[in-house]
Amino acid sequence: MSKPLILITNDDGITSKGISVLIEEMKKIGEAYVLAPDSPNSGMGHAITVDSTIHIKKSPIFGEIASYECSGTPADCVKLAKHELLKDRKIDLVVSGINHGMNASLSVIYSGTMSAAIEAAIEGIPAIGFSLNDFRYDADFDHARPFIQKIVKEVLEKGIPKNVALNVNFPARQDEPIKGVKITRQTNGFWKEEFDARKDPHGRPYFWMGGGFVNREPENQDNDIWALDNNYVSIVPCHYDMTDYNALSQLKDWNLSN
Amino acid sequence: MSKPLILITNDDGITSKGISVLIEEMKKIGEAYVLAPDSPNSGMGHAITVDSTIHIKKSPIFGEIASYECSGTPADCVKLAKHELLKDRKIDLVVSGINHGMNASLSVIYSGTMSAAIEAAIEGIPAIGFSLNDFRYDADFDHARPFIQKIVKEVLEKGIPKNVALNVNFPARQDEPIKGVKITRQTNGFWKEEFDARKDPHGRPYFWMGGGFVNREPENQDNDIWALDNNYVSIVPCHYDMTDYNALSQLKDWNLSN
Repeated sequence: MSKPLILITNDDGITSKGISVLIEEMKKIGEAYVLAPDSPNSGMGHAITVDSTIHIKKSPIFGEIASYECSGTPADCVKLAKHELLKDRKIDLVVSGINHGMNASLSVIYSGTMSAAIEAAIEGIPAIGFSLNDFRYDADFDHARPFIQKIVKEVLEKGIPKNVALNVNFPARQDEPIKGVKITRQTNGFWKEEFDARKDPHGRPYFWMGGGFVNREPENQDNDIWALDNNYVSIVPCHYDMTDYNALSQLKDWNLSN
Repeated sequence: MSKPLILITNDDGITSKGISVLIEEMKKIGEAYVLAPDSPNSGMGHAITVDSTIHIKKSPIFGEIASYECSGTPADCVKLAKHELLKDRKIDLVVSGINHGMNASLSVIYSGTMSAAIEAAIEGIPAIGFSLNDFRYDADFDHARPFIQKIVKEVLEKGIPKNVALNVNFPARQDEPIKGVKITRQTNGFWKEEFDARKDPHGRPYFWMGGGFVNREPENQDNDIWALDNNYVSIVPCHYDMTDYNALSQLKDWNLSN
């Protein structure tokens, strides 16, 4: 039986540590193929490049692994692989990451890592986004490796529900080993912004976005933030239907007739 | 009673026709305040500016209306207005658009217009994204005006369900007047990409993203594409919980224990 073809991308860019760990793990399981942004794309959300050109070039950094760097976004990478570079082959799996920083709770909608995975789900390809809850420069990714193996093998064997991508977050490395894996839901929370207002040398204002995460449901244990805080790997199945079905009936009572 | 404070933004940039139409309509209803990108942001998805600075400057183009142009994304504009420019006031409504091109079906996840509206919903502010299903350069926005008035007044009077933003799409102007308003859901469909591969003057490859929309459920009449195709205004209530609750139980049968 031929090896599964695995497309690897990310949003931190092709030179980041997280993608090299992911490539090492995917080489053990299948045929790795890399198409990743040529520079960091953090916070890109589900951006795509519609009004300018997309450039790719072969990258030598992963040796014998077919590797390309791309001027586009993570979602662009998936589209370009599916419809151009690998259009004559079947991609068995798309993996994105490992993101240097968590993508739990609301981060999923800002995340370039997850936009690649969701784009793959839209294209009908099983997909997983991996993120590590550790923003430190020298973050250790090694404790995630055995879980990546398990999750990817399970996905290749069992598939993923249609129109769904998995949002996998690993806790930062702690003295105790990871306790296990929890299937969770997106925590109800948000980022409370505080802008750092400065003046440029010409006296013109500019801002740095900062702030912290606010958990609106700290009492609940079935969500992704709880899992990470308690040293579990979190897996949230994500879809891309933004319709709020509960709100539909409420709006139908509105008076909007001519 | 004081007039409602209405923040107006978009993704086509502050000089676009759609935002000027929206400002004219909002002036009739409340106090208009404009903070919009200084250049086009189409296809930006829910991008935010986390790794660079955000610059704003006052814009003279809307006369007495307080107007600022911003180097950031549509979602940045909402965050910056809420937490910096208008931090001492209550924003009663955020409106985004009118986008020059439709944001129905899956377009909602690529749309900068809707990312601004969803960002506002996250911040607890009622929000509406408006888009016109007409990509032509000289698209006419006037037939949308009476519906904008109705919808905005209804929202200011009745509010919007919590954690929900409205995705409003108008049909392109036709000989017959618009038939009415339909509360709909996001159509199951996708964009089928075709990349136009070219060579630059140095022989290096580059690509233009193109392609067309594929409707996976053309037989159904309760969705936003059907409404637009049949000359109705479509309103989809959108949330931002990406969890696929149906998939949760299925994944819980997986074998991922240590």
